[in-house]
Formats: sequence, C-alpha cells, structure tokens
Amino acid sequence: MDLKETKMQTAPLITSADLLQHWQGHRRLTRKVIEAFPEKELFGYAVAGMRPFAAMAKELLAIAAPGVREIAGGAAEELNEQLGQADSKAKILALWDEATAEINRYWAQVPDERFQEHIVAFGKYEGTVWSTVFYFIDNEIHHRAQGYVYLRSLGIEPPYFWER
Amino acid sequence: MDLKETKMQTAPLITSADLLQHWQGHRRLTRKVIEAFPEKELFGYAVAGMRPFAAMAKELLAIAAPGVREIAGGAAEELNEQLGQADSKAKILALWDEATAEINRYWAQVPDERFQEHIVAFGKYEGTVWSTVFYFIDNEIHHRAQGYVYLRSLGIEPPYFWER
Repeated sequence: MDLKETKMQTAPLITSADLLQHWQGHRRLTRKVIEAFPEKELFGYAVAGMRPFAAMAKELLAIAAPGVREIAGGAAEELNEQLGQADSKAKILALWDEATAEINRYWAQVPDERFQEHIVAFGKYEGTVWSTVFYFIDNEIHHRAQGYVYLRSLGIEPPYFWER
Repeated sequence: MDLKETKMQTAPLITSADLLQHWQGHRRLTRKVIEAFPEKELFGYAVAGMRPFAAMAKELLAIAAPGVREIAGGAAEELNEQLGQADSKAKILALWDEATAEINRYWAQVPDERFQEHIVAFGKYEGTVWSTVFYFIDNEIHHRAQGYVYLRSLGIEPPYFWER
C-alpha cells in the first residue's frame, strides 16, 4: 500500500454518512420554517408575486425522496410537484417526515462509488450523483431563505439558520 | 490491501477540487446577483426590515477568503463585516474578484486530511473543516436567495439559480 492510498483511505473530505446528516439537518430546519407559518399564510401568502411557501415545500418534497430513490435504484422518476393531498400544514409535515425516513432508507443503498457517476435526474438534469445531491440541498436552502423573508414580512421571527 | 481500502481509494464522494469548483460556481452566481442590483438599491433597499444586499455581500466577503486563509494557515482570523471601503457596487465587485483569487490560492494549501479536523472558525464557530466550508457556502446561498426576493420586489428578474 503506497502513501497515496493510505492518504485516500484516511482522508475522505466527507463521508456518505456526513452528507446525509448534513442534508437531514437542513431538512429539520426547513421543517421548522414550515411549522412557523400560520396555516393560511403557508398556502396563501407570498412576497413580490412569488409562490406561497407551501408550493416551495411541495417542490422540495417532489425532489428529495424520489430523487434519492432514483439515485439508489436507477429507475427514472417523474418530477411531480402537485401533491394534491398536501392541502394542510399537518399533511405537508406528515409527508415531510415520511420523506425523512425514505431518504434514510434509499441513501443506505447508495454505494460510495456511485457519487462520482453521471446521471440524468428526473430525465432532464445532468450531473454527477454528488452534484445532484448538492443541487437538492442548495435548492432547499435557496427556497427556505425565501420563506425566511416571507416570515419576516409577516412579523414572525424565523428559526435560527444554524439550528439544525 | 483489503477491499475496504480499495474502495476508499477509488471512491471519494467528492474531491477537494470538486468542492472548490462548486463553491466558486455559487460565487459566480452571487456576483451576478450583486451586479443585478441598481447602485442605489444595493445599498439602500431591503424587504421586511432586513439588511440591504450590500451588507449581506460584505458579510460574505468577510467570511470567504479570511475563512479559507484561517483553514489553510491556522492563524486565527477576526470576522470584520464593516469593510468601510466597499461603498460602491464597483468596489464590492472588485473585492469579490480579489476574494475569488485568494480562495483559490489558500484552498490549494489545504491538504485533504484537514477536512475532517476540528476547528473553531473566527474564534467562535466550532465544527470540522468540511462542515465549516459547507456553512460558508450554505450561508451564501441563504443570503443570496434573500437578494432574489429583493430583486423580484424591485421588478428585476434575478439570474437563473442553476447558471453558475
């Protein structure tokens, strides 16, 4: 075993478990943001002509578990943001918790080798597996931050960004 | 060499170069968001009683290059968001470009082993090196998304999120 091998073995930048934990930490924070909205404003309030936060939360639900299922299993997924059944805060939160468990389950089926492979997520988004997962997380941070502005404009203090 | 070692050697989730490129892609997008603001609104406009986007950009400048310098060199840095000299869009963009080069330079001095080490960034934020770098990136996405809302409320179309 030469030095380079030793180094790679002892020094991955992040492990698969690290990345999952990082994402689930963000998802716990997003869950708190959903909870912080009053029922009516979650579905009916927005700033600057944008979508209500419920529509963003449904987009995040449409991406997260189906996205990891596709990465784990390889079968193509369709992006379905409609989620007709998610018509109350309680239902969105229940779907959020189901997705948390699903993500954990499918993530465990993704071998480390897979992260540098190329995929076309949801039949249209090209990238590596790692860049796709990062995109899922980044997109969540992006929309959640817009939810922070909605909350502040409603006079509601959002949860701390660093509280995961 | 057992199988586990072979696997670690051939399958890092992401490389140091991947992570740098990912961050610099986000930084290119944030630069476009700074550019999209009219001079006056960059410094004087905000939604919901929040900070103008220039203050957020200065925070990002205070974190990025000094943060990587601290990670590379180990010497403690102070978080200085004031940046008195950054009083025009052109000056902020010039500092942004200087930081881009500085980040690349210091990043090259960070060995892979360092990413799992524990640090206390800016004398107060505890974490691993990887979680600290992720925090820098996540915090940038978070504030930039608030800039998106500001732009939309000004009737200005922000750059595409996926355009890096």
